[in-house]
Amino acid sequence: MRIGVLTGGGDCPGLNAVIRAVVRKGVGEYGHEFIGFRDGWRGPVENKTTPLGVAEVRGILPRGGTILRSSRTNPFKVDGGVDKVRATLADRGVDALIAIGGEDTLGVAKRLTDLGIPVVGVPKTIDNDLNATDYTFGFDTAVNIASEAIDRLHTTAESHHRCVVVEVMGRHAGWIALHSGLAGGANVILVPEQRFDVSQVVAYVESRFETDYSPIVVVAEGAQPTEGDMVTQNGELDAFGHVRLGGIGQWLSDQIEKQTGKESRAVVLGHVQRGGTPTAFDRVLATRFGLHAIDAVHEGDFGKMVALRGTDIVRVPLAEATSELKTVPAERLAEAEVFFG
Amino acid sequence: MRIGVLTGGGDCPGLNAVIRAVVRKGVGEYGHEFIGFRDGWRGPVENKTTPLGVAEVRGILPRGGTILRSSRTNPFKVDGGVDKVRATLADRGVDALIAIGGEDTLGVAKRLTDLGIPVVGVPKTIDNDLNATDYTFGFDTAVNIASEAIDRLHTTAESHHRCVVVEVMGRHAGWIALHSGLAGGANVILVPEQRFDVSQVVAYVESRFETDYSPIVVVAEGAQPTEGDMVTQNGELDAFGHVRLGGIGQWLSDQIEKQTGKESRAVVLGHVQRGGTPTAFDRVLATRFGLHAIDAVHEGDFGKMVALRGTDIVRVPLAEATSELKTVPAERLAEAEVFFG
Amino acid sequence: MRIGVLTGGGDCPGLNAVIRAVVRKGVGEYGHEFIGFRDGWRGPVENKTTPLGVAEVRGILPRGGTILRSSRTNPFKVDGGVDKVRATLADRGVDALIAIGGEDTLGVAKRLTDLGIPVVGVPKTIDNDLNATDYTFGFDTAVNIASEAIDRLHTTAESHHRCVVVEVMGRHAGWIALHSGLAGGANVILVPEQRFDVSQVVAYVESRFETDYSPIVVVAEGAQPTEGDMVTQNGELDAFGHVRLGGIGQWLSDQIEKQTGKESRAVVLGHVQRGGTPTAFDRVLATRFGLHAIDAVHEGDFGKMVALRGTDIVRVPLAEATSELKTVPAERLAEAEVFFG
Amino acid sequence: MRIGVLTGGGDCPGLNAVIRAVVRKGVGEYGHEFIGFRDGWRGPVENKTTPLGVAEVRGILPRGGTILRSSRTNPFKVDGGVDKVRATLADRGVDALIAIGGEDTLGVAKRLTDLGIPVVGVPKTIDNDLNATDYTFGFDTAVNIASEAIDRLHTTAESHHRCVVVEVMGRHAGWIALHSGLAGGANVILVPEQRFDVSQVVAYVESRFETDYSPIVVVAEGAQPTEGDMVTQNGELDAFGHVRLGGIGQWLSDQIEKQTGKESRAVVLGHVQRGGTPTAFDRVLATRFGLHAIDAVHEGDFGKMVALRGTDIVRVPLAEATSELKTVPAERLAEAEVFFG
Repeated sequence: MRIGVLTGGGDCPGLNAVIRAVVRKGVGEYGHEFIGFRDGWRGPVENKTTPLGVAEVRGILPRGGTILRSSRTNPFKVDGGVDKVRATLADRGVDALIAIGGEDTLGVAKRLTDLGIPVVGVPKTIDNDLNATDYTFGFDTAVNIASEAIDRLHTTAESHHRCVVVEVMGRHAGWIALHSGLAGGANVILVPEQRFDVSQVVAYVESRFETDYSPIVVVAEGAQPTEGDMVTQNGELDAFGHVRLGGIGQWLSDQIEKQTGKESRAVVLGHVQRGGTPTAFDRVLATRFGLHAIDAVHEGDFGKMVALRGTDIVRVPLAEATSELKTVPAERLAEAEVFFG
Repeated sequence: MRIGVLTGGGDCPGLNAVIRAVVRKGVGEYGHEFIGFRDGWRGPVENKTTPLGVAEVRGILPRGGTILRSSRTNPFKVDGGVDKVRATLADRGVDALIAIGGEDTLGVAKRLTDLGIPVVGVPKTIDNDLNATDYTFGFDTAVNIASEAIDRLHTTAESHHRCVVVEVMGRHAGWIALHSGLAGGANVILVPEQRFDVSQVVAYVESRFETDYSPIVVVAEGAQPTEGDMVTQNGELDAFGHVRLGGIGQWLSDQIEKQTGKESRAVVLGHVQRGGTPTAFDRVLATRFGLHAIDAVHEGDFGKMVALRGTDIVRVPLAEATSELKTVPAERLAEAEVFFG
Repeated sequence: MRIGVLTGGGDCPGLNAVIRAVVRKGVGEYGHEFIGFRDGWRGPVENKTTPLGVAEVRGILPRGGTILRSSRTNPFKVDGGVDKVRATLADRGVDALIAIGGEDTLGVAKRLTDLGIPVVGVPKTIDNDLNATDYTFGFDTAVNIASEAIDRLHTTAESHHRCVVVEVMGRHAGWIALHSGLAGGANVILVPEQRFDVSQVVAYVESRFETDYSPIVVVAEGAQPTEGDMVTQNGELDAFGHVRLGGIGQWLSDQIEKQTGKESRAVVLGHVQRGGTPTAFDRVLATRFGLHAIDAVHEGDFGKMVALRGTDIVRVPLAEATSELKTVPAERLAEAEVFFG
Repeated sequence: MRIGVLTGGGDCPGLNAVIRAVVRKGVGEYGHEFIGFRDGWRGPVENKTTPLGVAEVRGILPRGGTILRSSRTNPFKVDGGVDKVRATLADRGVDALIAIGGEDTLGVAKRLTDLGIPVVGVPKTIDNDLNATDYTFGFDTAVNIASEAIDRLHTTAESHHRCVVVEVMGRHAGWIALHSGLAGGANVILVPEQRFDVSQVVAYVESRFETDYSPIVVVAEGAQPTEGDMVTQNGELDAFGHVRLGGIGQWLSDQIEKQTGKESRAVVLGHVQRGGTPTAFDRVLATRFGLHAIDAVHEGDFGKMVALRGTDIVRVPLAEATSELKTVPAERLAEAEVFFG
């Protein structure tokens, strides 16, 4: 068989580990050939390829990013996109595809499979918000980077009797905020799943200031204040109720400073969370995903994606992955509240 | 309620996170009081205590070790040990115990519960070899430390055209070897679960030397050569077939040097793997274990220990934890073999 | 002797290492007593003290922040401030002070010495911009944090064919930008010492995009565009020519995006650079500064501060430290330019 | 000009950074060509080369090891070695060499220069024991790795009331032991420069055990006990007075256990200290060394090596580098003794 591999969507530590595992097992155990498609779905659409053999995957396991590069191109939004994909596969003699990506990439994979193009998916999102798998690789790395930053910020907060608001990634799901906040000993954790009451946040911050320690507030980029605050802060929110200038972290830090009279600083961790070398957890998970994805291809079990359930790697229909967002359940957030304030 | 807390057995990153979570929730949500017992079961046996309140657990989340210290004391091996434990609990007005530890500590917990002393257990082992839980805290930290070391050793091996044998922890189970070997891109992984054939290891090493790269062999401290080798190496193995001088890592490195004619060096990571600040994964897991352990105590659900199943924390009978060792299954090792050589 | 110790100004990794070294040698070798003043110069002004003995400094060597806390209080700006300092020292029986801080803190130290209050200074600034010493502690930690972030951002930039602009600390001196930019393999480094030409930056960025790699621009927070750009971007600069909204990093990233048509993202590292555990370099330097500062006090050599010259710790007049900012010389920046583009 | 580059001796983080800087400036600013010699001096002796241009040095800055590989080959110990070097240089049209290495490599460089072969040297040793330069790259990385390990070992020592003996690199000079011991808060530091009295070490260890903390002993691999101990331990020392089995760390740990009756464990950090990604300090130093080395070649200033003096890079005769070992002066060790016990 000749198998095409592509990586789509945002950068995520572990992508290279998947690619390496796919190729090492595919070549070494099954004798397949591989071809890399560049820049996500743009590769098959525009027939952009790159050689992909054992030599190309040497040494890439510990490296962040993706040697195949990425993009957000969607063949269903390109004129004649699907036909172009078909044409490329025919031209390159490609029998099957492995698509590594998040909701969008896997959504395309599903629709292509429905149209008879054989694809196996590998789930990827640092946000950990894909429903069909216990964890996605990249998430553990992001959480470690964020919690190391929070460790550092504690001492600077305390030395200056300051509040520090740390904005972490998570537009629709608060997993990074929840886990890094728990790991970092945050005094408040705010997630997109539950609107927050600024006065409650201020109360936590003030109660922390009564100790000899200083408050650390962890806020997901997608977290939002309650309706009441939105009215009060009217001009500062956009039509969809999102906080505009400088992000929610800066906005909240300003609110805290105003309402408590204490200094507060915002730190926005940003893209640092999604690059660089993966943690061991993510390397192992990504490697196992790759090994099982090539098994699925080898067995002709298309339209599936690999997923983690407990300590096992299983296969689930691609449809499952993209049906619903996995958000932080209320009880997980409640569990963390004992540490607030 | 007044609740006693103790930590037994080997050091493990995350112990302090458990203690903190227990106390924070126990005091903050349930209004319980706590008392720390020093040095594992020696504390209750010898009535050695230390204050344990919200003030004592401030700032300990990111710290390795245990503020309660540890020991391997077993009340069932001390003359009148169980009576001494009863006497201490009566003297201190302690209603229940939370025992954080591995197989031995939890085994004592089980037997004491059978004798009417109310205990809840929290599983702990960096080796990840407790049967009742998907993961134990400390394991992820150990694996990260080992795989960072392997990352470093790759470049030094290559610069010198040398083989490097890395000996990691794992006397009876090869989990650390398997995960750090996968994460570190090892060329051979040897575990206690399966005796290894030195000539096969040598073959992998030689095939790696044919590339421009150098071999890294990861070996668990408890791994052993096959019977055939034991006879050949007779004088170097003890009565139980364990390799003696300098450990299995040094022994294997010497064998490789002799049989390949290439330089080989052994690195024994040792206690570095079990100390210091926990990873985010271990902090979150340990914290959740602590929160659920105090819930169990509060509900009077004794004779249980907390455990991870998928992403949930559940309670299982203490007996389950100590019935059988969780070793690396053959298929997980087979999965890794595609990367050998 | 009874000696007071205080830490002033911004948080800086290594402060605790200085305090520990001062106390350990002062008590252990000279038999002095110590008293901690809280919150920088506010401590002596408001008679806020804290016990400071060998017990208090145990375990603080690896910790960021300062156990004495800090502030920007200046006794010369407080009504009767100097008299209050005198009164506190008399009240507490303090014979001499060790003041650990940056330009402002040491400036106060100098003026107080001139008024007969015996002070020895220890220089501190993560910006490394104090003239009298080769390096200050905290700088190496900040540079490592920034260059690790840059390492991570390379892979994410490349995966997305994006430019990333990394804003690092340095209001008046570009040392952190220069060193982290060199260490991180930045494609452009911009410092406050030399106004930059946006079109030149854009040219570097475009030439980098012609390779298969993506540009990383490191910009010190105090860097500024040339006059020409200021006029062009008129509305976006304040009266002093400082870029306003979102800082220089965001502004520059927007410019790059506009002028190249490629995606660009800004990452502002912020306070993460100044907190947390110090590197070994900073721990050793801070420890040696502390040891030599207590020697100076013991010998009655006041009005001096300790400084690094080559590998030696020397004493220099406090005046020297505060006379002139140590900025990045033109030849050091020129040295780096070979890597631009 | 066509310039050959080689790296000799032990692996050292920063080698690739030197190579990159040499090539980037040599090509970009001076228009020179480069050729890589493989495996240290074996390359010129055996005419083993590898292409070395801007493409080859992309992305190598953060990587440990050396893309040119290394060896301990000495042309003066190979039959007709120098003639072979001459022949290779003629064959390849090489006008000058840059030799990056330690005492041995630079010693060869000096002798070749004396014979009319134009060489510029770049000093390299993780041991920091080259006389002509304040610091060598690789040392800072080694010290950071060792002090992070010591940080971790503190908590495990304390949890178990154990002594831990950490053996670090340094056969002839104790710089790594001194700096990592200071940075890690060791309770005893033992270096090759000064024989140690075991009973004194035991006294320090016992006094530490009287606190609630546990002793950490840092010992350089080349440290040795005093004559008295040597006699006592007769059978365990070789003809040169070196401790034999298991190294000095294990030997000392055994002594401590015997003489104190407390548990003690040895950890030998080994090759982990010399591999992997360099710290920012080492990357900057190595980069600057490379930039100045190519300047020297360009100016025809042969027989020199680059060196760090304060914050400046200077050139010194190769003879200076190899004349005398830079050992830890007595006063630097005395400075550290205040922390012993």
